[in-house]
Amino acid sequence: MARKSFGSDNHAGAHPAVLRAIAAASAGDAVAYGSDRWTAEVTGRLCAESGAAEAVFVFNGSAANVLGMSLLLRPYEAVICADSSHLNTDECGAAERILGSKLLLAPAADGKITTAQIGALLAGRGDEHRVQPRAVELTQATECGTCYTVTELREIGAFCRAHDLRLFLDGARLANAAAFLDCGLAELAAEADALSFGGTKNGAVGAEAVLVMREDLLPGLRFQRKQQLQLASKMRFLAAQFGALLDGGLWLRNAARANAMARRLAAALVSDPGITLAYPVESNAVFAILDPARIRRLEQDWAFHVWEPARPVVRWMTAFDTTEADVDEFAAAILATAAAAG
Amino acid sequence: MARKSFGSDNHAGAHPAVLRAIAAASAGDAVAYGSDRWTAEVTGRLCAESGAAEAVFVFNGSAANVLGMSLLLRPYEAVICADSSHLNTDECGAAERILGSKLLLAPAADGKITTAQIGALLAGRGDEHRVQPRAVELTQATECGTCYTVTELREIGAFCRAHDLRLFLDGARLANAAAFLDCGLAELAAEADALSFGGTKNGAVGAEAVLVMREDLLPGLRFQRKQQLQLASKMRFLAAQFGALLDGGLWLRNAARANAMARRLAAALVSDPGITLAYPVESNAVFAILDPARIRRLEQDWAFHVWEPARPVVRWMTAFDTTEADVDEFAAAILATAAAAG
Amino acid sequence: MARKSFGSDNHAGAHPAVLRAIAAASAGDAVAYGSDRWTAEVTGRLCAESGAAEAVFVFNGSAANVLGMSLLLRPYEAVICADSSHLNTDECGAAERILGSKLLLAPAADGKITTAQIGALLAGRGDEHRVQPRAVELTQATECGTCYTVTELREIGAFCRAHDLRLFLDGARLANAAAFLDCGLAELAAEADALSFGGTKNGAVGAEAVLVMREDLLPGLRFQRKQQLQLASKMRFLAAQFGALLDGGLWLRNAARANAMARRLAAALVSDPGITLAYPVESNAVFAILDPARIRRLEQDWAFHVWEPARPVVRWMTAFDTTEADVDEFAAAILATAAAAG
Amino acid sequence: MARKSFGSDNHAGAHPAVLRAIAAASAGDAVAYGSDRWTAEVTGRLCAESGAAEAVFVFNGSAANVLGMSLLLRPYEAVICADSSHLNTDECGAAERILGSKLLLAPAADGKITTAQIGALLAGRGDEHRVQPRAVELTQATECGTCYTVTELREIGAFCRAHDLRLFLDGARLANAAAFLDCGLAELAAEADALSFGGTKNGAVGAEAVLVMREDLLPGLRFQRKQQLQLASKMRFLAAQFGALLDGGLWLRNAARANAMARRLAAALVSDPGITLAYPVESNAVFAILDPARIRRLEQDWAFHVWEPARPVVRWMTAFDTTEADVDEFAAAILATAAAAG
Repeated sequence: MARKSFGSDNHAGAHPAVLRAIAAASAGDAVAYGSDRWTAEVTGRLCAESGAAEAVFVFNGSAANVLGMSLLLRPYEAVICADSSHLNTDECGAAERILGSKLLLAPAADGKITTAQIGALLAGRGDEHRVQPRAVELTQATECGTCYTVTELREIGAFCRAHDLRLFLDGARLANAAAFLDCGLAELAAEADALSFGGTKNGAVGAEAVLVMREDLLPGLRFQRKQQLQLASKMRFLAAQFGALLDGGLWLRNAARANAMARRLAAALVSDPGITLAYPVESNAVFAILDPARIRRLEQDWAFHVWEPARPVVRWMTAFDTTEADVDEFAAAILATAAAAG
Repeated sequence: MARKSFGSDNHAGAHPAVLRAIAAASAGDAVAYGSDRWTAEVTGRLCAESGAAEAVFVFNGSAANVLGMSLLLRPYEAVICADSSHLNTDECGAAERILGSKLLLAPAADGKITTAQIGALLAGRGDEHRVQPRAVELTQATECGTCYTVTELREIGAFCRAHDLRLFLDGARLANAAAFLDCGLAELAAEADALSFGGTKNGAVGAEAVLVMREDLLPGLRFQRKQQLQLASKMRFLAAQFGALLDGGLWLRNAARANAMARRLAAALVSDPGITLAYPVESNAVFAILDPARIRRLEQDWAFHVWEPARPVVRWMTAFDTTEADVDEFAAAILATAAAAG
Repeated sequence: MARKSFGSDNHAGAHPAVLRAIAAASAGDAVAYGSDRWTAEVTGRLCAESGAAEAVFVFNGSAANVLGMSLLLRPYEAVICADSSHLNTDECGAAERILGSKLLLAPAADGKITTAQIGALLAGRGDEHRVQPRAVELTQATECGTCYTVTELREIGAFCRAHDLRLFLDGARLANAAAFLDCGLAELAAEADALSFGGTKNGAVGAEAVLVMREDLLPGLRFQRKQQLQLASKMRFLAAQFGALLDGGLWLRNAARANAMARRLAAALVSDPGITLAYPVESNAVFAILDPARIRRLEQDWAFHVWEPARPVVRWMTAFDTTEADVDEFAAAILATAAAAG
Repeated sequence: MARKSFGSDNHAGAHPAVLRAIAAASAGDAVAYGSDRWTAEVTGRLCAESGAAEAVFVFNGSAANVLGMSLLLRPYEAVICADSSHLNTDECGAAERILGSKLLLAPAADGKITTAQIGALLAGRGDEHRVQPRAVELTQATECGTCYTVTELREIGAFCRAHDLRLFLDGARLANAAAFLDCGLAELAAEADALSFGGTKNGAVGAEAVLVMREDLLPGLRFQRKQQLQLASKMRFLAAQFGALLDGGLWLRNAARANAMARRLAAALVSDPGITLAYPVESNAVFAILDPARIRRLEQDWAFHVWEPARPVVRWMTAFDTTEADVDEFAAAILATAAAAG
């Protein structure tokens, strides 16, 4: 791709610091499967920053979701989540087959679910014919680019504690939420029983962390990770990636950059009466509604997703390495389609 | 570790060419989930070299086994394998829980199973009370460091075809078998319906390929990979690793080096009457039986595994980066334990 | 219960002919696990009446659903069904854990789903991130007591064939549908790939049949039944129950009686302006909306379900052994609550 | 079958008292799914007799095994059992697919495993690559017709408690063990965490009980039963069968009769030098080794199983309704084959 992709933060390469860290970690021998010094050090830092009882690395976000929730659920228990959640729509049934759990879906207009929606899905508790709702899964930031505020997280956390529900955060883009909310890992993680913290979309080659906040959830953690096909033999290479992201707060700077570029893009389009934002821009994506003819024109030169063909909504996504020039060029191209479609 | 580890080929870092390939692949944007040019090119080369209908990348060896065999089995069908196979002993029950299949175990003295053993496990076919044996899994090279010869593979392949069995090869160390047998991927893969081809133990950061030899097994491949939590978003980084290993036959040279170092170690110990080889040295491991006092002495300075505490058998394993000096130093240390134990 | 229950057709005992058949089948020895003459004869009759390639017995309706659909699906394939279906709401997650499949839910106002709804759930086909819709499950009669007409079945069947979808009928109350539609098993089963045919709610002690309409779905049938914990050792006792129901069309007479009693109840309430039918009465249930105070009054003396507390909707269900006197007494009691609530 | 079958206790019909109890339970309406008075009363009696915290009914023995063990295991935990156990050989992989657990097999010459064998299978505890042994499953009486003595049960129970293992008894023929050991349910169940208590082979139409001995295992019991497809709607009919078996100790008398008939058969054959017992006769089966020609002759007129074709071993099994005349006729036929084969 000659032009910067606005298709996904997964279209970006890796941050140079991550690549250097992988190369550096390659020197010499190290015990396999996580008994190495990189893993010890980096998981220690992750726990210190987040308040987690333990942190482990897995290969991708679907795995982080399944592993994290497998710690929270018994076989007949279900997960409450947004209908638009990655867990529901984009993991090819891993929740049902690998986790073995039913998802109870709340229709979330902007990707966020509410305590009222959660409460409405608690009917049937104690009835042996029904799966028993036991965990709530929130995506932070959501698939719509929105973020639960810390106040909202606390409200949902309190609701969960009051209703014997456990809370899991899908944090594939947790860094973007932290940057938007201007808060640290510990504040985001405080209400959760377990959460994922994504590295891949934020500059890693490929690495996700699962943070487990409670000691009593740890006994099965390592066995479940292995059984779920997520134990890396050369674990140091996963640890080193997170080490690079933690150094000097790179994870937060990467996310802040991506978020700023999304805001810059949205700002550049404000003057265009043919473009409406579908959701507020709270992380690194701009969801916009515009004329299908303009979309078709733009697709000829630029990479992005048509998110909802019906309305139609497009998703323009920025990454840690999106530049101001990239945004300005893209914004100009978008604005130019007005004429083409007119 | 100051001294070279003889504990595992997983203790080595990554080959410099692999690290360079990852860095090079990071330049610019690329479509995620495998629709990138690295993946297209490298899977194409893998198919060409092996005769496979399709090749996909996964994160580790357990996943390669589960994915490969999930293509071959219906829910009530079972896998025949060696009791010492990684699938049976070292995957924390992934075969049973994720694949959902029973393993029918053949006691394999040297890691290799025979057509007679396979035949003995076919009783109960057609009986609805019994799982139905449907796939045979061979590890090549085996957990004991031995290799099935091409003739043996053909014999087992013919047996499988004659008995409506499918054949899967766990090739986490397929490169070492190729180096020992002096043959190519196509010759090793010819009898199989699917197989894994390991990169991690052979110099990769972390990457395994699943090679599917038959077109009719392909429809579920990509869905199963995703559902089994093995779809990398930045796939180019897995592809690039295999690209580096394929370039100029690096995979085979790496394996040949590791194998040669194991042979060198075994040769250096021939003169020691207190050391007996447990298995022939056919790949990159030396399995030796020696006095427990000598083992304890050696463990003070060197990293290796006590494989069977009872006999006792130790495993000394070499890697792509083990040097002649490493071997000579280690051999001298082993020989020196004779005096210590005397 | 002194008064007849209108809570469920499961509250009834067994038909005397079924009890006699069980006792008669107990005479003498018989080979276990279905290789007996009762099973051979009765499954033969079921196949002849329905056009099925094979029929097997299982213990309950959830099992019939799971077994039937397990013949139709690969691990990454999903089932399209009504949100109100028993499969979704009343099987404690068996679909997700035992079958391992995601359910794609269509909101069905009256329990029936349409080809338009099915079509809307086909998005994402071919996308490896999504489960692949592969089977459509219809409940006949539905949880709302409504029935798909033969024309509707044909329309859905044609849609399924045109879109590479398989069709399964949950026929826990298939007999009631047959009675309402005045058609035979073959006509109801004609469009399906597999279906269940319920005995328990229709006068059996406990027995359900799974009818498989296509030869190519048979190879796994008996193994899956065993693995799914549904193989009865003394199978003749399941077969004998269906034998009794088939004799002289008892199954259809039982269902016709139950249906007639539901219609009689609805007719008796027509004059009451405070009672509205929630759904048309097409099988053996009357779903009615009435004042909560009347519901509370009625609950003091009679057994029935409050189906939707919010509207509120109650379900009054008849059985094969509900009498005209039972209905008349119950109808009078319902009408009398008008005064109480006034 | 004109002649009494010696093929299986599953070949017998149901005891007349069981049939009468089913018919009696059919009178009037009853709430479904176990909230009826029969279920309350009979489970109460089962708990009182066995010391169980709770008892539930399921449809068959495989289901009882899976349900009972699902209460004891986390996903990465394994079951230690005899290689000859029903769980391993005769449930079509339900342990692996429905329970999702690996079985760790002890070779049990006579169907019984020892604490030494259990201990040998505990290697690998704490190692995340290995499944974690967590439950021990004993079959009582075993597939070889032998019984663990109360002393042996206590020894294994103590071993399990000392090694953090839970104990499950597959009691499909628990009644036969009780009759042989001359002890009650409570004495047999005392060491177990959960066990099954079989009705079907002992005169029921089809019913098994799962007895859970500890309060802390109960929370998931009813949900797991439902999810595992074992919740009967007309539960009273399962309860009534056990009610009949409990009345006046019918269960024990039935088993005692079957056992006595096996002993009578063995005694009648003592004089025949061509017949050797393969296992001691401790329940309702005689396992005998005799000349293949005699076996072939006997098979022409009588139904029984060739258990191990190689040695060869046959199984002659008695049931609750086997008469002395049946045994005497069969014994005479067996003895007569000596001449035929001579």
